[in-house]
Amino acid sequence: MQNDLVAALDIGGTKIAGALVDGTGRLLARAQRPTPAREDGDTVMAAVAAVLGELAQDARWSAASAVGIGSAGPVDASAGTVSPVNVPGWRDYPLVDRVREVAGGLPVTLVGDGVAMTAAEHWRGAARGHTNALCMVVSTGVGGGLVLNGRLHPGPTGNAGHIGHISVDLDGDACPCGARGCVERIASGPNIARRALENGWLPGPDGDATAAAVARAATAGDALAQASFDRAAQALAAGIAATATLVEIDVAVIGGGVAAAGEVLFAPLRRALGNYATLSFVQELAVRPAQTGTDAGLIGAAAAAWTPSGAVRESAAEPTAS
Amino acid sequence: MQNDLVAALDIGGTKIAGALVDGTGRLLARAQRPTPAREDGDTVMAAVAAVLGELAQDARWSAASAVGIGSAGPVDASAGTVSPVNVPGWRDYPLVDRVREVAGGLPVTLVGDGVAMTAAEHWRGAARGHTNALCMVVSTGVGGGLVLNGRLHPGPTGNAGHIGHISVDLDGDACPCGARGCVERIASGPNIARRALENGWLPGPDGDATAAAVARAATAGDALAQASFDRAAQALAAGIAATATLVEIDVAVIGGGVAAAGEVLFAPLRRALGNYATLSFVQELAVRPAQTGTDAGLIGAAAAAWTPSGAVRESAAEPTAS
Repeated sequence: MQNDLVAALDIGGTKIAGALVDGTGRLLARAQRPTPAREDGDTVMAAVAAVLGELAQDARWSAASAVGIGSAGPVDASAGTVSPVNVPGWRDYPLVDRVREVAGGLPVTLVGDGVAMTAAEHWRGAARGHTNALCMVVSTGVGGGLVLNGRLHPGPTGNAGHIGHISVDLDGDACPCGARGCVERIASGPNIARRALENGWLPGPDGDATAAAVARAATAGDALAQASFDRAAQALAAGIAATATLVEIDVAVIGGGVAAAGEVLFAPLRRALGNYATLSFVQELAVRPAQTGTDAGLIGAAAAAWTPSGAVRESAAEPTAS
Repeated sequence: MQNDLVAALDIGGTKIAGALVDGTGRLLARAQRPTPAREDGDTVMAAVAAVLGELAQDARWSAASAVGIGSAGPVDASAGTVSPVNVPGWRDYPLVDRVREVAGGLPVTLVGDGVAMTAAEHWRGAARGHTNALCMVVSTGVGGGLVLNGRLHPGPTGNAGHIGHISVDLDGDACPCGARGCVERIASGPNIARRALENGWLPGPDGDATAAAVARAATAGDALAQASFDRAAQALAAGIAATATLVEIDVAVIGGGVAAAGEVLFAPLRRALGNYATLSFVQELAVRPAQTGTDAGLIGAAAAAWTPSGAVRESAAEPTAS
């Protein structure tokens, strides 16, 4: 692993990022394209191919032994397909086959973006050294992934750890997923902002009504703004406690734009966790901010390619010219 | 495994059962004592020793190569201790060491009772052949366990899968565990009966106000009785869907006294599951009644002793006379 490189792809609704990653998690070469998210599937794939093509220009490409993909979900690692909510042109799109063709037959591993972030945090971030961990992103959406028994647990389809869509309020507000009271429906950035506004919080003169603005107001002492973060923290705590009670984890790592608000979120989260993580075997659970930042998707896609525990790792096809 | 036997112990708040179990899950010899649950810890242990002593009278005891214990929780498999809620004389009680002494130094494996039932259903019951499964008991309490990647997932302390104490109603009724809106607080037998009575259901002339009586009334068409089962089913569905979304399971197996009510529970449960298990990778989830019945604890304790994945399996100490 130390002498090899991996080509990593981080595919989201806004951008497609790629990198050559070494065995220590260093990003040696980068490429990026905007995601043509409203275009047809082949146009989106052409952007992926352009990212890979740019990486292949790098002399170090020849050392790449595999491709790892972290994609917006849902994904189906067992079928090698993706159906990202924000990329309607891709429905059951055979991304693994297409990328393998473009990458000259290299083996390709696919996981969901929450699983990729988890792989990154377990390899190089705040979950390092932990045998059982939940890692999650709280941002426009809420996603996550699990490390169990010291290994990434992507699940058969690469979607495990999808904490944003477990219900913690079974009679609660309808969620776009079809269920009610999902963690994401309460704790995502847009829902933090929506709730603050509904409860009477007024944005400042700049008119900024995002969760980041609510966070600044809460830090400055605005009670309505803090109340919206407190409710988000309560939902996150219930979801994290549920996860710990179900699989036994000793750390929950949280990244993403909303987590960047810092103690405005983490302080009420730690308090609320005491109210929901009550059984003896979950009381020692720690909550920590993520460390791998905006490169988490790339680092994690590389990690998943090296250790595709549970997920499909495509065997190498006959190499062709790349 | 086919030629060996395992001594299995199923320790609950009411009885302590033991058996010699063969490699096909057959119970060859049995012993049982009431649990002296209100006595001091050593008195409870004497009852365990009496069960083992009776099994040791059987000529086949000499073929026993290990002891498996499924105990009421919480347990701590990593420490080898148990603290069953209903046995106050045992708090951090070193059950593994004590049983090993009594059993002549045989290796001892400890798991929680929900994990034991899961091991039984995966080995000989409705989860057989499934790579990822949730098994649960809905009775006086609600417990469970997980099979992940084809293996029992007891977690480091042997308590994983404890679905009864995940919150599905974060503002809900206070649960004895300290949290709110736990699955058990809504779906256990006593809570089904309590809710039916609170909503105006009237027991029959025999005065029976148990969940079994509510189930009979629901089967006979009583709307208040059915409503209480419907609410239990909704909470179970939210919890099962959360589990599937977190770890990816393809079957949920349900046993215990409340599940014995049959379609009064299973029909609304399947309907409610459609409302909470909404993401593509959990929509195919099946729900099935458990098959191993009242021997689940013994069969599962034996299975855990043979395949102690994740849980501590004590290495054999120097054998002494049993």
